[in-house]
Amino acid sequence: MSTNHDKTKFPLVVIVGGGFGGLNVARQLEDQPVDILMLDKHNYHTFQPLLYQVAMGSLESESIAFSLRKNFGGQKNFRFRIADVSRVNAENNTIETTIGEISYDYLVIATGSTTNFFGNKDVEHHAMPMKSIPEALNLRYLIFQNLEEAVLRKVKEEREPYLTFVLVGAGPTGVELAGALAEFRNYVLEKDYPELKKEDVKIYLCDFMPRTIGSMSEQASHASEEYLKKLGVELMMNTKVSNYDGETITFEHGKSIKTKSVIWSAGVMGVIPKGISKDIIERGNRIRTDEFCRVIGTENIFAIGDVAAMITDETPKGHPGVAQVAIQMGKNVGGNIVHLIKGEPTEPFKYNDKGSLATIGRNKAVADLGKIKFQGFFAWLVWIFVHLFSLVGTRNRIIVFINWMANYINYNGGSRLIIRRFVRGSVSHTTEAVTKGE
Amino acid sequence: MSTNHDKTKFPLVVIVGGGFGGLNVARQLEDQPVDILMLDKHNYHTFQPLLYQVAMGSLESESIAFSLRKNFGGQKNFRFRIADVSRVNAENNTIETTIGEISYDYLVIATGSTTNFFGNKDVEHHAMPMKSIPEALNLRYLIFQNLEEAVLRKVKEEREPYLTFVLVGAGPTGVELAGALAEFRNYVLEKDYPELKKEDVKIYLCDFMPRTIGSMSEQASHASEEYLKKLGVELMMNTKVSNYDGETITFEHGKSIKTKSVIWSAGVMGVIPKGISKDIIERGNRIRTDEFCRVIGTENIFAIGDVAAMITDETPKGHPGVAQVAIQMGKNVGGNIVHLIKGEPTEPFKYNDKGSLATIGRNKAVADLGKIKFQGFFAWLVWIFVHLFSLVGTRNRIIVFINWMANYINYNGGSRLIIRRFVRGSVSHTTEAVTKGE
Repeated sequence: MSTNHDKTKFPLVVIVGGGFGGLNVARQLEDQPVDILMLDKHNYHTFQPLLYQVAMGSLESESIAFSLRKNFGGQKNFRFRIADVSRVNAENNTIETTIGEISYDYLVIATGSTTNFFGNKDVEHHAMPMKSIPEALNLRYLIFQNLEEAVLRKVKEEREPYLTFVLVGAGPTGVELAGALAEFRNYVLEKDYPELKKEDVKIYLCDFMPRTIGSMSEQASHASEEYLKKLGVELMMNTKVSNYDGETITFEHGKSIKTKSVIWSAGVMGVIPKGISKDIIERGNRIRTDEFCRVIGTENIFAIGDVAAMITDETPKGHPGVAQVAIQMGKNVGGNIVHLIKGEPTEPFKYNDKGSLATIGRNKAVADLGKIKFQGFFAWLVWIFVHLFSLVGTRNRIIVFINWMANYINYNGGSRLIIRRFVRGSVSHTTEAVTKGE
Repeated sequence: MSTNHDKTKFPLVVIVGGGFGGLNVARQLEDQPVDILMLDKHNYHTFQPLLYQVAMGSLESESIAFSLRKNFGGQKNFRFRIADVSRVNAENNTIETTIGEISYDYLVIATGSTTNFFGNKDVEHHAMPMKSIPEALNLRYLIFQNLEEAVLRKVKEEREPYLTFVLVGAGPTGVELAGALAEFRNYVLEKDYPELKKEDVKIYLCDFMPRTIGSMSEQASHASEEYLKKLGVELMMNTKVSNYDGETITFEHGKSIKTKSVIWSAGVMGVIPKGISKDIIERGNRIRTDEFCRVIGTENIFAIGDVAAMITDETPKGHPGVAQVAIQMGKNVGGNIVHLIKGEPTEPFKYNDKGSLATIGRNKAVADLGKIKFQGFFAWLVWIFVHLFSLVGTRNRIIVFINWMANYINYNGGSRLIIRRFVRGSVSHTTEAVTKGE
């Protein structure tokens, strides 16, 4: 394998995952006496906070993604391979991957998280997740296919399920998608679909918790709920889903809604390769680490970001699954690997919480920045600035900015194209393969 | 069906296809006393001349496409449905479609063309066509997957087929793609793939005709061949393909090349629904029309663009399959339908040939504009201007312009993302369905 490491050179750091965490480990190791091998099942980094805009067709998928090869094109000690890691063999410092076995000197597990359906196979089969670009595109295709189906149906009862959208999970993703969907309904729907009435489109946002964006302040929750109601989103708090069979979603309190579109952002779980001891797998399928992000019981394996649970007295549940944690852990681990190689003392991870933001439709957002909490237009400007600044790549920033300005001016940016028809529930075990017919 | 027409209103014009032809019929009929129903299997118009840039990852697919609903959002007499037309029943003025039977008063067949593999099933199965956005994306994924595969192989003989690209058909599409591929190889490859050497990537362009872009002047052919050779494309003129089995392409003169990527742009054929008499189907699977674009033997059915063969004394082979013909035929038919309704005399179609352009890599192009023929940088500026101007949508124009400027400055625009893995030769009969696994 060309991925085997030349033993005469520097120690090899294998980074599994090109998300915020992995990206920052590799950047921190630039010009250091190490060789880096990054593995990811995609050849790009995804800016997950804007996936909902890809789903609504207001951004193109490639505006929120960036080639990992291109990003590190100038970094001499960096190599990249498309690969999926199936197992970690800590005892002999190797991993098993789709491109063969690879030896490492240091291993960074930055595999992130995937959608948690909490074991409900029906929901998993029928509801739409939105954690990756292919998933966001599938959701877009489904939304617009359903509108096309609605147009074909004159009988109200037959049409309604295609015009009813149920979002499960009122965290930032659910709230932002609900806002975007409502604005599409309110301002664009009747232009694109003169056959449909906006009153006929229903958007429900439900959560088993009592308030939206439970991770933020009560003030933020309160404002976001007000914005959502004003946009016409029907909130269903304290509501637990019992099932969804593709036709009807049922709730534990007995109610049910007929819908062709259930969007599931109710929880995530870490993506852990095999070979990690069950004793150190925490709630949410996360790997327990010490305060240096080091996997418990190992010397040279680190876990960072969504897949890590750094459980200390100060953080008894670990850290929140947000970009900032992954970024800061990535920098910490990158730095500590250099310290280890140079025989210097390592530095414990300290999370610097820069605050939280969520946007609800055009020109409204909520912000908790430490003790400063504010909502409305200024929060939205902060949201815009932070997200543009966090995107990878100048071209992406410019193109996203142009798209946002176009949307702001005429409410009607975005292209809403169904490039590949989405077909639910095939026997295929991947959402990502495209096959060529004859 | 909601697509049934309200008999109390205006005559119904059904347009099948939202390409250049169909688009212009519908535009011409704005504010006229007709109802329009456009059917297309996609909900977007594709700007085909730039598909090769989508294949190379230098443009995003949605920059060269435009939502048909959005495009006609303000046109009161326009309706749209996603549908495929399987049969025309001229005797009772109906068509059979995937959304049911539809009656028409006037029918415009603007279904365009698809790739012609000339009956070779092996080639059809293994070679890559590039006539639609899904096909261009598949080709992109294959190109970059093959580079990833090449990186994994140390043995020269095993690596070579992944680094060898054979383009069949040296028309504008083949020439433009060959130029773009060569520029990627020459300027970007080693930045993204430090493991590969540009000398190891081979690009062949073959055609059974003696010269490139046979539809243009000898002067244009000559210049394009020179530009291609300078870029390092190996030309194989007077060379007919005999087969391609996915591993080796063989030629009638006996040579063969081992390659994982054969890109086929050697010919097109019209896409004709059933129900059209075989007697009026011409070479290239095109429908014979009179000088009013009217399908021979019918009163109220028109065929335009790539699917039409208007065979007259002046045009014994019909018109070339280019955008300008489709655009002008669309305007002619739109106008004539109004004349027919008002009882006015109809106008015969006269093709105004505005000339041909093809670009070969960065800042080189060839232009035949009537008697004026020129090549080089100025031709490239004309090419840029004409293509930007012809794109649908201001946002698309701005975004394509930014991308081109970025590419021009650093040779390294574009994102080259493998969003969905391409898998050759499944049992699926469509390139376009995405299925959700469990």
